[in-house]
Amino acid sequence: MSKRICIAVDAMGGDHGPEVVVPGALEAARSKNLKVLLVGDEARIKTILAQESTKGIEVEIVHAEEVVGMEEKPSEALRRKKNSSIQKAFILAREGKADGVVSAGNSGATLACGMFTVGRIKGIERPALASILPSEKKPVVLIDVGANVDCKPHHLLQFGLMAEIFARDVLKIQNPTLGLLTIGEEEGKGNTLVREAYNLFKLSFLNFVGNVEGRDIFKGNVDIIVCDGFVGNVALKLMEGLASSLGALLKEEIKKSFLAKMGFLLAKKALKNFSKKLDYAEYGGAPLLGLKKIALVCHGASNSKAIKNAVLMAASFVKNKANEHLEEGLSMHQEINLLGKKALTTQKK
Amino acid sequence: MSKRICIAVDAMGGDHGPEVVVPGALEAARSKNLKVLLVGDEARIKTILAQESTKGIEVEIVHAEEVVGMEEKPSEALRRKKNSSIQKAFILAREGKADGVVSAGNSGATLACGMFTVGRIKGIERPALASILPSEKKPVVLIDVGANVDCKPHHLLQFGLMAEIFARDVLKIQNPTLGLLTIGEEEGKGNTLVREAYNLFKLSFLNFVGNVEGRDIFKGNVDIIVCDGFVGNVALKLMEGLASSLGALLKEEIKKSFLAKMGFLLAKKALKNFSKKLDYAEYGGAPLLGLKKIALVCHGASNSKAIKNAVLMAASFVKNKANEHLEEGLSMHQEINLLGKKALTTQKK
Repeated sequence: MSKRICIAVDAMGGDHGPEVVVPGALEAARSKNLKVLLVGDEARIKTILAQESTKGIEVEIVHAEEVVGMEEKPSEALRRKKNSSIQKAFILAREGKADGVVSAGNSGATLACGMFTVGRIKGIERPALASILPSEKKPVVLIDVGANVDCKPHHLLQFGLMAEIFARDVLKIQNPTLGLLTIGEEEGKGNTLVREAYNLFKLSFLNFVGNVEGRDIFKGNVDIIVCDGFVGNVALKLMEGLASSLGALLKEEIKKSFLAKMGFLLAKKALKNFSKKLDYAEYGGAPLLGLKKIALVCHGASNSKAIKNAVLMAASFVKNKANEHLEEGLSMHQEINLLGKKALTTQKK
Repeated sequence: MSKRICIAVDAMGGDHGPEVVVPGALEAARSKNLKVLLVGDEARIKTILAQESTKGIEVEIVHAEEVVGMEEKPSEALRRKKNSSIQKAFILAREGKADGVVSAGNSGATLACGMFTVGRIKGIERPALASILPSEKKPVVLIDVGANVDCKPHHLLQFGLMAEIFARDVLKIQNPTLGLLTIGEEEGKGNTLVREAYNLFKLSFLNFVGNVEGRDIFKGNVDIIVCDGFVGNVALKLMEGLASSLGALLKEEIKKSFLAKMGFLLAKKALKNFSKKLDYAEYGGAPLLGLKKIALVCHGASNSKAIKNAVLMAASFVKNKANEHLEEGLSMHQEINLLGKKALTTQKK
């Protein structure tokens, strides 16, 4: 029997803490025969475990004294809280005791600890955060959604490569299509960064379909959309904000009318199905790609289902050897990568 | 009696052409005692005018032989179609025969013709396109939404200044607040462009409230949100796309259930009020700020109401001497502007 895949879960992360994280992690371990390491306040986790059935599950508590708060600065968290649950989870990964990390805590601190503790895959200059978004047709991967605010063209190419392997290995999309997020679909549209990245993508072995626009994210006609982390993060927060504000405005109108209230009661099931399609918990978390060990960053408001799905996704990433495939992909694209860097050197002269 | 404010309207622009544009322009002229110049195919406009009441309205047709198609490249349209309706509208403005221009046509061509024909206000390096967006509380101005893809920090400051004067003079917001669109609210968050622009805004006389995130656009806690035209255009198209895709997904679910269909029928009025809050036609168009003459770019799908409101907005801009106020604002900010440019020169060394 091969060794079980082991995921270290930051049990203290997220708005709801271990009460939500622990059951989610256990559920994942149960469903796919995984091992989970619950990292955090031992006493608190023990109390929760006592209420759960752990029969047949391989689970261990790894005590961590400190917790990084949601509002703490990543750099300071890294420096001052060396015994935080998120830091300890990555240390377990570095020591080979865990194959991947899942956290619903401070995402900036997760990025910082990941970079510092397990480090990048050789050849990847900038690990990037991908987000799996619902669309009219199928899930769409948006990368980078916030790990890198100032990017070079060859960074975008690497983001595309990482997302492509993730889409193949984890989302099981065959020959995924990639587009560059810009303004206007024709070649030559966009800012300098995108225009230069366009040329690199055209040379690559990726299934590049050209430029896509903001509206294409939800159409679902392309599997992966690549952008720099500034644009991607603005986009992500804008989507969250728009969806929530539309909901608030709609609720306000409905409250005003008895008929409307009745109407929405009748449509309750349809609305529930609608919400389910948009439920981030279906994919659980945003994969942080390019580290030596996979890490998934979950939404702070994650419920147990989201945690469960994130742990399963991390395990699937490990099981399907996505990082090995990434290294292969990198070597195939080495020349184009160099081309991108060369172009930069020439510009500087 | 003072001379009537005169707006040149590109009668051929938009998906629906003069059949929609002409009635909208007439309606505006009627309601605020304006003069309108309808620029385009004389015969076609005459036929439409014959069906409308023009009593007491000062209206003239200015013939233009050519029309720029929605998909044409702006640079080519400018070079090849010297007698297009949009180009002619700007020529009328340059010659002092019109005080402003409104077009629902090719927005890229409108920008290009505006820049080329009437030119920039002295001191404004980059005219910018502002969009007036609905929010939970009050309209929010987002600037730039696509005129400038690669920006420098002092360009963002100028965008803010232009939007501030527009918000005061046209939207009648007293002492409007401004925020910089970025990722994370604390000072020092964002990419290099935003971080440097932050310092310039802090030095300015503007009512700068700091960084805002994508989700803040719809909260309505800040009056003006400044970003570069790449980010702004991605954001704008993303909002359009998300709203339309959410609608499509919801419709799909409702269709599946008889109860849901009944429910939505009951809630019809509330839904209509909800849609009204999001109706772009309420503001009509996106002002192109920084040109010697105001121009408004309307959505291609504009209805007559949108055209009417855009013409009224252009007239209000002229009436309230917004461009004169902009020149005053520019002179007040000259030193900060220079500081921004100086920082750039130092960097290059």
